[in-house]
Amino acid sequence: MAAPARFSLNQETVRQWSLPELVAGCCAAGVAAVGLWREPVRGFGVRETARLVASAGLRVSSLCRGGFFTASDPAGRAAALEENRRAVEEAAELGADVLVLVSGGLPEGERDLAEARRRIAGFLGDLVPWATGHGVRLGIEPLHPMFAADRCVVSTLGQALDIAEQFPAEQVGVVADSYHLWWDERLAADLGRAGAGGRIVSVQVADWVTPLPEGVLLGRGQLGDGCVDLRAFRQLADRAGYRGPVEVEIFHPGLWARDGTEVLREVIARYREHVE
Amino acid sequence: MAAPARFSLNQETVRQWSLPELVAGCCAAGVAAVGLWREPVRGFGVRETARLVASAGLRVSSLCRGGFFTASDPAGRAAALEENRRAVEEAAELGADVLVLVSGGLPEGERDLAEARRRIAGFLGDLVPWATGHGVRLGIEPLHPMFAADRCVVSTLGQALDIAEQFPAEQVGVVADSYHLWWDERLAADLGRAGAGGRIVSVQVADWVTPLPEGVLLGRGQLGDGCVDLRAFRQLADRAGYRGPVEVEIFHPGLWARDGTEVLREVIARYREHVE
Repeated sequence: MAAPARFSLNQETVRQWSLPELVAGCCAAGVAAVGLWREPVRGFGVRETARLVASAGLRVSSLCRGGFFTASDPAGRAAALEENRRAVEEAAELGADVLVLVSGGLPEGERDLAEARRRIAGFLGDLVPWATGHGVRLGIEPLHPMFAADRCVVSTLGQALDIAEQFPAEQVGVVADSYHLWWDERLAADLGRAGAGGRIVSVQVADWVTPLPEGVLLGRGQLGDGCVDLRAFRQLADRAGYRGPVEVEIFHPGLWARDGTEVLREVIARYREHVE
Repeated sequence: MAAPARFSLNQETVRQWSLPELVAGCCAAGVAAVGLWREPVRGFGVRETARLVASAGLRVSSLCRGGFFTASDPAGRAAALEENRRAVEEAAELGADVLVLVSGGLPEGERDLAEARRRIAGFLGDLVPWATGHGVRLGIEPLHPMFAADRCVVSTLGQALDIAEQFPAEQVGVVADSYHLWWDERLAADLGRAGAGGRIVSVQVADWVTPLPEGVLLGRGQLGDGCVDLRAFRQLADRAGYRGPVEVEIFHPGLWARDGTEVLREVIARYREHVE
């Protein structure tokens, strides 16, 4: 039985798999789309990855990630721009629907969150022409406020939209991930606003489970294990007009320690039960 | 040299101290106000604590805490009401400026965050007359969204105000803690709204440091060790008309392992440097 039509598997959910294993595993399970990460893709080779996924007929629903461009010094900013141009080129070569951008946190020693947030639009002003030239759409991903200091100063979908809307919708959209946004009472309104503007470029799902682990990055829960109403989340995106892939992105050492095929089977079953 | 006039020491910052040690330590350092917690107060005796702080001339800037009233079943709700009535009585006996309320998280197995948030006002409708009868003001404290699942479904100052404003300002206000609110771009506007309505009943400060520890509860940072602009935070509250104590509330095992007198000295010095 094929996986649900809109189901996409983010590579980090089955981090134990090499790229060939990922592609073979997805094909065997009838998965039509994958979300990829730059590091493993570069490790395997960008061109080789592009050939592999294309020959398997897989859609690349996203490439994670560009971003980390909150540097306030010119050298840091220039280095970030270079790095993000490479990310754009890789997304183009892979034919990814979107290059996901995580803004980065507060630079060391800085305390002005509002100013760091303002710098993002300026940086995008430099990156967007490059992305447009390569036919790559950018997606700003807000991360949970618990990451505001060290990973992403963009903490809500509303903030992501405030930035994205400074550019044409075909160039810059937003990424809506249930893990980061579930707590926000403005989520429904902001998803509606994003959909009306044609700005929802990616929808990702993971559940929220407690207690959070040290560092909190690897605390994302298997679908159904936590307290997020994932179906309601997906329906909000649908109601806002989103018709694209729904990518399952779970960072969880417990899943990585298991057999990838078994994990994928479980993820698909959970997706049917809690998301579809 | 006396501590700054508005400085208040929350008891949990020097958890290693018994109540007599806390009172003696505060008197020696010229601290005029303390924030207390129910558990140690009950351990020492509510009446005995009230006598001790009164005889030392200390102001009780807050009592932590009531709340945890998101239960959806009648028995859980009744038990929470009883427990909160006891907390009100204790706050009255201590002469505390405010009884801090932390709403509680999502009940086990529930996924409707909006509904859990709605239940809070209903619960307060039952508790407020009791508090008013005892001359105790209630303060709704929003906790950081990372606690939305398991500790507090009220995640922003705006949400806390939406609830508080259903009651008279002299009965229900809001507690503004830098650790929980620093990331929120609406903070300035919401503090302004809270101040205009006479609703700021407590201001607490702690810094945000990363990486967060497992469980994230004990990750609050010493003033100046993190990325929060604490002075700007205090100034926002002041500009909103707040004139009360500024309570330092840091849960940090590193501070608890040290000599209490030394910790208090450091906290006061940091307060002068980063808050006053």
